[in-house]
Amino acid sequence: MIRLGLLGMGTVGGSLADLIRQQHDDVLARTGYDLTITRAAVRDLNKPRAVAADRLTTDPMEVAVADDVDVVVELMGGIEGTREVVRAALMAGKPVVTGNKALLAAHGAELFALAAESGTALLFEAAVAGGIPLMRALEQSLRGEPIERVLGILNGTTNYILTQMSDNGSSYDAALAQAQSLGYAEADPTADVEGHDAAAKAAIIATVSFGTDVTIDDVPATGISSVTARDIATAKRFGYVIKLLAVIERLPNGSDTEIAVQVSPTLVPASHPLAAVNDAFNAVFINGGAVGELMLYGPGAGGYPTASAVLGDILSAADGVAEGFGSLARRRGDANLRIRELSELESAFLIEVDVTDEPGVLSTVAGVFGANSVSIRSMEQTGMATEARLEFITHTARQADVDATIAKLDELDVVRSVGTVIRVLS
Amino acid sequence: MIRLGLLGMGTVGGSLADLIRQQHDDVLARTGYDLTITRAAVRDLNKPRAVAADRLTTDPMEVAVADDVDVVVELMGGIEGTREVVRAALMAGKPVVTGNKALLAAHGAELFALAAESGTALLFEAAVAGGIPLMRALEQSLRGEPIERVLGILNGTTNYILTQMSDNGSSYDAALAQAQSLGYAEADPTADVEGHDAAAKAAIIATVSFGTDVTIDDVPATGISSVTARDIATAKRFGYVIKLLAVIERLPNGSDTEIAVQVSPTLVPASHPLAAVNDAFNAVFINGGAVGELMLYGPGAGGYPTASAVLGDILSAADGVAEGFGSLARRRGDANLRIRELSELESAFLIEVDVTDEPGVLSTVAGVFGANSVSIRSMEQTGMATEARLEFITHTARQADVDATIAKLDELDVVRSVGTVIRVLS
Repeated sequence: MIRLGLLGMGTVGGSLADLIRQQHDDVLARTGYDLTITRAAVRDLNKPRAVAADRLTTDPMEVAVADDVDVVVELMGGIEGTREVVRAALMAGKPVVTGNKALLAAHGAELFALAAESGTALLFEAAVAGGIPLMRALEQSLRGEPIERVLGILNGTTNYILTQMSDNGSSYDAALAQAQSLGYAEADPTADVEGHDAAAKAAIIATVSFGTDVTIDDVPATGISSVTARDIATAKRFGYVIKLLAVIERLPNGSDTEIAVQVSPTLVPASHPLAAVNDAFNAVFINGGAVGELMLYGPGAGGYPTASAVLGDILSAADGVAEGFGSLARRRGDANLRIRELSELESAFLIEVDVTDEPGVLSTVAGVFGANSVSIRSMEQTGMATEARLEFITHTARQADVDATIAKLDELDVVRSVGTVIRVLS
Repeated sequence: MIRLGLLGMGTVGGSLADLIRQQHDDVLARTGYDLTITRAAVRDLNKPRAVAADRLTTDPMEVAVADDVDVVVELMGGIEGTREVVRAALMAGKPVVTGNKALLAAHGAELFALAAESGTALLFEAAVAGGIPLMRALEQSLRGEPIERVLGILNGTTNYILTQMSDNGSSYDAALAQAQSLGYAEADPTADVEGHDAAAKAAIIATVSFGTDVTIDDVPATGISSVTARDIATAKRFGYVIKLLAVIERLPNGSDTEIAVQVSPTLVPASHPLAAVNDAFNAVFINGGAVGELMLYGPGAGGYPTASAVLGDILSAADGVAEGFGSLARRRGDANLRIRELSELESAFLIEVDVTDEPGVLSTVAGVFGANSVSIRSMEQTGMATEARLEFITHTARQADVDATIAKLDELDVVRSVGTVIRVLS
């Protein structure tokens, strides 16, 4: 028998309790593990639950260290308080399964080290890309693969909003309101739309992919709240769709290797497999030196998909309880690669500049690009009467040079404003 | 140090030797395993190899049982002789990593049982869908998931041919010749184009997904050699693309559960993610009761992608050597579900019937469908002068009823021939 202590019985925790009940006999037949929820910590003892009332408590710490709990399943969210509870469970030698990306992106290094010291494991498949079995693929199947780049659509809410804007020409505000009415976006959507959620997941992917501790503070993130319907139409005209993309990559620097991690709205070529990932789906596209191109696609959130990932981890934790944790407990490597700063990163960009429509403007504007080492790949001009909009797609350029270009353009009398600046995936 | 005995140094074996050399230091830093190829069995001792000459032999059995080999890596292909070598290695307690789908689809049950008895493991990520980390996802991440259906584009050669026919309107023969000239198809393409390769992989997926031993003899397979450019054009007109699809599913039958496994050319809706899987790529689309829809996409063949999957398994085998095999050695379940026969399977179908163009023919033909319980969803008629072609898409119907319909149609004087009969994915 594997006795589970559940911390939190919200959407994911409740779905997990259902799934365990429904799959109990199949799991027993296939694995020999008799899964039982012996304790659960909840906020409100009076709500009806799928777990008997005498197994409920409001104190997560009580569950985390209980003698009759073999595996602790943390689905309560939160960072600092939850960190203490997870630490206590690990120090008691109990494996912890968590779906808490914010906790890992803030304190992952400490918690993984603690798990290893305690000879137990911290499992987190559910923390990134919901039901997609990404973490195990990166940690196990691709352990020997020279991973070059991981591109991720890691946030379902923003992907839903961008899909609505792209398919229906909705404004950002209308698409957000619709996402909220369907339950895809929270009342306060900040963590999703400003890219914080995706940045936390990107930090975890980078940590696992490159054996270097990356925290959310290392991940510059731009959200989608300033993306306009016009940007999306412009992107389409150039043959792209706009996605909130996490880019996690290994970069050579002389004889050294550095890594780069950032999240931003990005123009993805319409022919790229990621361009077809719509609605609330997530996907991760991996470039490896040996394997070439891999893509994993699936539901990035939701009670049952996330519970499915949690259940997979629970069974791995049960293996550890039965047979020892061995490789599950191992630290995720300590390559300690340098993380390149955003200003040093290179990308192509879409840059839209509103100008007064008078002779010589294009030449002046183009001169500023050239003077700052930003080379132009293509340009289109739209406009009427005395106003015009210049839409540039640049060749690959340093972020710092692009920033300098924009600062200079802003100073020009003929430039009314620099609108959108969005990365272009090459 | 983990000492590897390599059986076969062809495309995959040679790529693996390269990859191990290239990744040696990274793997050592991340995992602590110092991977060394101590022995390799090859056909020709005189070819130049990435392994020192004094480590080479022409006798695979010598490598399989050698004292200085910790992990046996079987990349030599073949069935009966290879079975003996793999048996010997497993009986000697050595873990075996294999990419041999034909061996597993014929003798998997015996070999997995032997691995479990011997307290070691038989690992086979590379045997199905090349570099895509599918087996580990099914065996580990989705162990608790109620898998309902797995759809697979599992053969790169046929997918390349069908893509050429679809994109360029090539004939089957021209597309095959092109695939051969590019090295995507063998001189004797039978195993690929007649669906045997995909059927072996489907058998392995079914075994792992449903804990029921399925061999290649249980998998009815139709290949693509009779698919015409006209079929592809007709499919396109109805909004579909034709893919060689493996369908592996769980089917309720009263209180029982049965499974079904088959491989055939199939009309896939153009909007389905599998429809966009082109050229030599593979993809697997999983429907689960909890997780919903997952897709894994990547290279299905090729030296380095396959070597990447082999290397992942080698590192898991190394974990087993270091820490015991535990769950890796466990039998893959023994649910022993009944495998439903092809004649009992249900699907929608595209059926093309060439008829003489005279009054009442459609009514006569439609009457035969109705009399055999095959309901028509849509029909188009093309033709000129005295000939016409009727193109039907049916509702879901039993294969046996469709077969009976076609037999009856063949007897009608007004029917010149029944052309294509192709499954339609619903």
